[in-house]
Amino acid sequence: MPAPKSHPRYASLKIRDKIVDGMKKGITSLDGLTAHGRGEAFDYLIGEKTTKVAKKSIDSAAALLLTAKYPVISVNGNAAALASAELVQLSKIVPAKLEVNIFHASKEREMKIKEELIKNRAKGVLLPQKSCKIRYLDSNRKYANKDGIYKADIVFVPLEDGDRTGALIKNGKRVIVVDLNPLSRSAQKATITIVDNIVRAVPLLIKTIKQYKNERYGKNKFDEVKLKKIIKNYNNKRVLKESLELINKNLIKNMPQNLS
Amino acid sequence: MPAPKSHPRYASLKIRDKIVDGMKKGITSLDGLTAHGRGEAFDYLIGEKTTKVAKKSIDSAAALLLTAKYPVISVNGNAAALASAELVQLSKIVPAKLEVNIFHASKEREMKIKEELIKNRAKGVLLPQKSCKIRYLDSNRKYANKDGIYKADIVFVPLEDGDRTGALIKNGKRVIVVDLNPLSRSAQKATITIVDNIVRAVPLLIKTIKQYKNERYGKNKFDEVKLKKIIKNYNNKRVLKESLELINKNLIKNMPQNLS
Repeated sequence: MPAPKSHPRYASLKIRDKIVDGMKKGITSLDGLTAHGRGEAFDYLIGEKTTKVAKKSIDSAAALLLTAKYPVISVNGNAAALASAELVQLSKIVPAKLEVNIFHASKEREMKIKEELIKNRAKGVLLPQKSCKIRYLDSNRKYANKDGIYKADIVFVPLEDGDRTGALIKNGKRVIVVDLNPLSRSAQKATITIVDNIVRAVPLLIKTIKQYKNERYGKNKFDEVKLKKIIKNYNNKRVLKESLELINKNLIKNMPQNLS
Repeated sequence: MPAPKSHPRYASLKIRDKIVDGMKKGITSLDGLTAHGRGEAFDYLIGEKTTKVAKKSIDSAAALLLTAKYPVISVNGNAAALASAELVQLSKIVPAKLEVNIFHASKEREMKIKEELIKNRAKGVLLPQKSCKIRYLDSNRKYANKDGIYKADIVFVPLEDGDRTGALIKNGKRVIVVDLNPLSRSAQKATITIVDNIVRAVPLLIKTIKQYKNERYGKNKFDEVKLKKIIKNYNNKRVLKESLELINKNLIKNMPQNLS
């Protein structure tokens, strides 16, 4: 039963439908659904729009992806269910490789995610290889593709958990995450945390990359000095602090009035 | 793959396993999983323990259930997955009827929830009747049992949404909800909102009811004057405000330190 348009949470329910569809397609796991619910709660608390502070993270993420030597986009079940077309578009414009990596081991689900990305016009999608591991990680997620995450200097991992983000950092990579919870371990460990909903953040990331490329330099060129400065001036701890302050402000704004 | 005990979110993951099990048993809906995830986020923000303010709500809920003329406990998919045994125990000690009521219409799921409650020693479980509706509600949830919610003066509806809570209130009933989000429409509309996790709140509610019954009065008797006073002194808006203040305090406490 689709939510009626009159429902006060219509936009949020439409996004949730994508996750439920992903579940039916075999892309999303059951745990992915609850993870999405956690995201919904924090999205509600930040106001369900891209905040000014998230825009700063997106600017810096765009700069980091463009100036990377070997950028890779890691795609899990929820990311594929919510933003396959956008992630494929991002991979083309950076350009960056796409690699599937999921928490709960399932070859079948990896293949389904790959198919979904191909259906959304990805030219190639890498899968993890049992012969190739990153260090400091135990679960299924330690496996990587030797031409993908294993080799990457910059990894874009929307919707990732703290252990994997931490392990990628310890493996010498710089990591960009999309995480609506500024208190999560992933948000705290990442190089750049975009505190925003993936369905809003990735289109804006694409738009920002296009702008950087078009500023006087034309296609596939950009002002490296300017972008390096953006990266240098970025402070992830400050971004998380400002995100928490915004949540605090919203909570106070929404407090019940007329306390008797 | 069960979560390792060393995982910093072990307790929360154990609770989530119950919802995933409920899904596999056909008790919980896909939407129920995301709803649970939202709850997880707010549980995290209140500190994943029963707060002092939640205890006030539980005291008042125990008093309201004991002094009710015709109390009924409404059970949906998530409530059954998380706390069937506890809800059955509550229904016996008050005593109150148990009635199944779910958001997404499914006779099969209603039957599965009933079976789960019976398996947990419920003596009787009412189901909604198509011939019996409560007013001010459109969806499947408007149907009620004429010997259950339809007739009730007090309805205990853990994990309910705003529309149904509001409709029950408009039908002249007093409503007790369990909701981890103090900003939800349900939390704002209820007579008593217990801002706590159902797996902690219901056992404490049972314990409180036992105490009220045992205070000098023995089994099945209680101090009506005292309980009416507890109910009269309860202020739900204040409870929600104090819950939000606590969340704000926790957010500040968890802010990243050493901001450079």
